[in-house]
Amino acid sequence: MAGDKFVLHYLTESRALRIVWLLEELELDFLLKVYNRVGGVLAPKELLDVFPTGMSPVLQIFKEGETEPLTLAESGHIIQYVIRHYDPQGKLTPSSDAEKEKVDYFLHFAEGSLQPHLVSLLVGDVASLRAPWPANYLVRGIVGKINSEYYVKRLKTNLQFLDDILAKKGGGFFVGDKLTGADIILEFPVGQNIFSNEQRARNLGLDVPPSEAWPHLYEWSKLVAGQPLRKKAVATEKANL
Amino acid sequence: MAGDKFVLHYLTESRALRIVWLLEELELDFLLKVYNRVGGVLAPKELLDVFPTGMSPVLQIFKEGETEPLTLAESGHIIQYVIRHYDPQGKLTPSSDAEKEKVDYFLHFAEGSLQPHLVSLLVGDVASLRAPWPANYLVRGIVGKINSEYYVKRLKTNLQFLDDILAKKGGGFFVGDKLTGADIILEFPVGQNIFSNEQRARNLGLDVPPSEAWPHLYEWSKLVAGQPLRKKAVATEKANL
Repeated sequence: MAGDKFVLHYLTESRALRIVWLLEELELDFLLKVYNRVGGVLAPKELLDVFPTGMSPVLQIFKEGETEPLTLAESGHIIQYVIRHYDPQGKLTPSSDAEKEKVDYFLHFAEGSLQPHLVSLLVGDVASLRAPWPANYLVRGIVGKINSEYYVKRLKTNLQFLDDILAKKGGGFFVGDKLTGADIILEFPVGQNIFSNEQRARNLGLDVPPSEAWPHLYEWSKLVAGQPLRKKAVATEKANL
Repeated sequence: MAGDKFVLHYLTESRALRIVWLLEELELDFLLKVYNRVGGVLAPKELLDVFPTGMSPVLQIFKEGETEPLTLAESGHIIQYVIRHYDPQGKLTPSSDAEKEKVDYFLHFAEGSLQPHLVSLLVGDVASLRAPWPANYLVRGIVGKINSEYYVKRLKTNLQFLDDILAKKGGGFFVGDKLTGADIILEFPVGQNIFSNEQRARNLGLDVPPSEAWPHLYEWSKLVAGQPLRKKAVATEKANL
């Protein structure tokens, strides 16, 4: 285990920074392999060779004494696996079973319930931008109606749900009193997408800035953005891009 | 544990049958509580009182000797939790750690990568149907373009990925040689959505029927549909609707 090596396959403009952060937190020996999107969209063939759906991040673990690497995909699964096997000091692992289950819940929630709405908003934005004038107005109107009736509504419900959890807890991290996989997985959909994305915030059609709509989430987003090893992960990312 | 009681909160027209099936497989003592959608769409207030986002399924476990139930959401998380805690004979649990990890992967993949595209196709269908004539033609055209350039493309990649896994395995179940949580979670997006939904199959724009496009997945869908306790789950569902 001490000699295990990690290769993180990282597609640009994806959600993969979280796994860089995870590996930095656990002081694991990793190599970041960056792939640029073909035409700004598709995964290149080299990434498809690693994992056939072109998903990113993909984490390969070269275990000491084994010839074939273990190839992991799905951010929630990667975070769960790595913390379960490579956190001997319990740095990111809550001490109680009930809290461990809560982390597992958020690993599923973030990717299964929260992120899909964000992806659909992004797909709609791209469709509106790509349509030629004057069709773009029409596309924007239709996409806007689908967004407001479905994706934005669900997204706001989920953000309110998260804000309420933190309010009830009295702030801080999502589970217990320390950083866990829950914070790491939620950082991208909440921190990056809601509080650091002005276009997205406008699309939500709020009367107030997101920081006022969901004040506990906003405080949390500053707390996680300020974690020293998240800052190190951002620096590692920049140095490799 | 032997005296633990389960209440499955079940919203009509959702993916909740899978959890009925799971509970039937493990012979757990459960009550199915059915909620009808308000106006055919929204979760009713009674379900919001159980879980604030109006998600379904929600599983409550009333543990013997405890006053508060444990409330679980997210199908992947529910399946993982229930199998981990209520499968003492290992009926749905693979014997090796590597196979257990594979099941965990599929629990994340099904809801995080596969299902969102299906939801987006459904949302687009609903938007097209609801738009008044003649705008509905326009909406259908725009939605169709977004689908073909994004959601359908990703969906086909994921279905091909699953078909290739089964082909390499020589058919049968997804992990090992018996039914696991992987089959239970994949049954809805693959079996119900692709092979039992003619509208969806047409939207995929295939040259051949889905059963010819993904023959291994099709064989698998028949295998899981024929599981005796899945049939029992369907009967339980019907009796409660």
